[in-house]
Amino acid sequence: MKATILSGTRDIRLEERPDPVILAPGDVVVRVVAACVCGSDLWGYRDFGRGRERATGHELVGIIEEAGAEVASLKPGDFVIAPFSLSCGACQSCRAGFTSVCDRVTFFGSLDRDRLWVDGAQGERVRMPLAESSLVVVPGPEDDALVPDLLTLSDVASTGHHAAVSARVGPGDVVVVVGDGAVGLSAVLAAARLGAGRVIAMSRHPERQAVAREFGATDIIEQRGEDAIAALRDLLGGDLADAALECVGTAEAMDQALGSVRGGGRVGFVGVPGNRVDLDAGRLFAGNITLGGGMAPARAYIPELLPAVLDGSMRPGRVFDLELPLDEVAEAYRAMDERRAIKVLLRP
Amino acid sequence: MKATILSGTRDIRLEERPDPVILAPGDVVVRVVAACVCGSDLWGYRDFGRGRERATGHELVGIIEEAGAEVASLKPGDFVIAPFSLSCGACQSCRAGFTSVCDRVTFFGSLDRDRLWVDGAQGERVRMPLAESSLVVVPGPEDDALVPDLLTLSDVASTGHHAAVSARVGPGDVVVVVGDGAVGLSAVLAAARLGAGRVIAMSRHPERQAVAREFGATDIIEQRGEDAIAALRDLLGGDLADAALECVGTAEAMDQALGSVRGGGRVGFVGVPGNRVDLDAGRLFAGNITLGGGMAPARAYIPELLPAVLDGSMRPGRVFDLELPLDEVAEAYRAMDERRAIKVLLRP
Repeated sequence: MKATILSGTRDIRLEERPDPVILAPGDVVVRVVAACVCGSDLWGYRDFGRGRERATGHELVGIIEEAGAEVASLKPGDFVIAPFSLSCGACQSCRAGFTSVCDRVTFFGSLDRDRLWVDGAQGERVRMPLAESSLVVVPGPEDDALVPDLLTLSDVASTGHHAAVSARVGPGDVVVVVGDGAVGLSAVLAAARLGAGRVIAMSRHPERQAVAREFGATDIIEQRGEDAIAALRDLLGGDLADAALECVGTAEAMDQALGSVRGGGRVGFVGVPGNRVDLDAGRLFAGNITLGGGMAPARAYIPELLPAVLDGSMRPGRVFDLELPLDEVAEAYRAMDERRAIKVLLRP
Repeated sequence: MKATILSGTRDIRLEERPDPVILAPGDVVVRVVAACVCGSDLWGYRDFGRGRERATGHELVGIIEEAGAEVASLKPGDFVIAPFSLSCGACQSCRAGFTSVCDRVTFFGSLDRDRLWVDGAQGERVRMPLAESSLVVVPGPEDDALVPDLLTLSDVASTGHHAAVSARVGPGDVVVVVGDGAVGLSAVLAAARLGAGRVIAMSRHPERQAVAREFGATDIIEQRGEDAIAALRDLLGGDLADAALECVGTAEAMDQALGSVRGGGRVGFVGVPGNRVDLDAGRLFAGNITLGGGMAPARAYIPELLPAVLDGSMRPGRVFDLELPLDEVAEAYRAMDERRAIKVLLRP
């Protein structure tokens, strides 16, 4: 089969790899219907570092081709959404709904807990363990038009939702979103869905501002740093936001989010800290700010968000502004790297 | 009048000071019925630093002696609880219930926003601004036996409550409390009141363990550091707590709290960070931990907690294990400093 392999900085290629097979009784093999490129895929693409070549991609929807002997609730032909992290469903974190902090958490393009290979999602097929506790079957006939929306549940829509849930966004809240990538835009959508009275997107890119508006942003702030906070105060008559959603992962974005909220405000953060981000506990203390977040427990959110996607009331797939065949994966990465595309969908 | 003045390291004395008078139309003058020594009072007592002499104490209940022209809802003779921070009740933070982050927040023993003197609470009388929006009247006849319980609402019981509220403690939760001072013990009480299924106090002092048990602790862990986490896992069959309440204010205590919770756990922190405490955002991210807290909005909590004190269902005054006349304030500080007392009540 064909699978995407990163071999060096900006060296990404589709290569021939062995077709995956069932290795353990809880496995399935999925044929990938659609995958995509994540902002986090760009880190290794932009700076390969000392790593070895690796299989890329962690977001996919697909059809089960084969299921292991112990897989009872999934069968060949099922159309499934795979959350970006696989989880056991039984450990304390999973039981509490935090499947991304599972004791046996397993990622695509790496070895699982039994040291068996899990393929990357940007390929034709994937073997994956923990199938019954991780995959979510999409009911009803396959609807190709829904594929982009369903695919976002794998990561980006769930991650935006996690930012809003972590900041406990509720009816009437004034919410600032820091970051206008696909996750930031998804966080705008999530905040609006959860009833925020006002959603203020921080973005200086007209095409991203347009998506933010479609997703429910009521206001846009183009400034950054202290100027952005001043603009926010202007907008709110001297007040600050109830909640801020940090969707970047840098110290600057965290600083922006912390500076955007009132006393007792809440910050949800889902931007993966690329480098170490130190927080001054005294700053949180002084502002009585609550900070929460991390990798989204997509597996826990998919069943909650899926009905809204199926009935069309939530269209998170709008973050995809470019679709390419898997053969053109190198162009997909280039388009994301050069910010010509917000997020690229790939079809094997 | 007599007021407590700190003039150097371990140099605390009762001195003669001018009787306070109304300075602004929103002021009241309160005759102190009871005050007390806070763990945070010991910082300056133990290390005076370069500061100037200062009036001490920030917790009091008392009787209004005089009210300014614009004070409509309070009158001489009212028995009131003063929260440890005074607040305007009108700014965005106050409206959101975070009175301790008020735009005009004012503390005892310092100048107010109009640069007028606010007396310390460890004295005979106190002038205070922002009276109507800060003080809470205790209804009914004065009951001397309730004075210790009522006094705790000024700070320590409200602060313990804030730890539990910030960690969103709810029914059935397994909660760890780090710190066995009066605040930690109050946090045990708060967690139990909010329905925690199991409250695990970390304490190695038998007399404090006894109060913790009275307040609802179901288990005690005497170890510290990694040993404490191992003991916690033993206690919980390999699991960790849903929430931890950090009631000390050191990096070690924060580390202990963060290490005590499961994936997706919550940490409420009310220990005033004495020195800078740096948090690694990546650690919160990796554990999906939510961290919240700060100075308690006592003014917002007093009306919520007062009925339980008045009907006797909540007896937070048990944290006072020594009562002294104000004349013996120096002994009160010594007893706290030497950990001979958990918390000392002072009667002018």
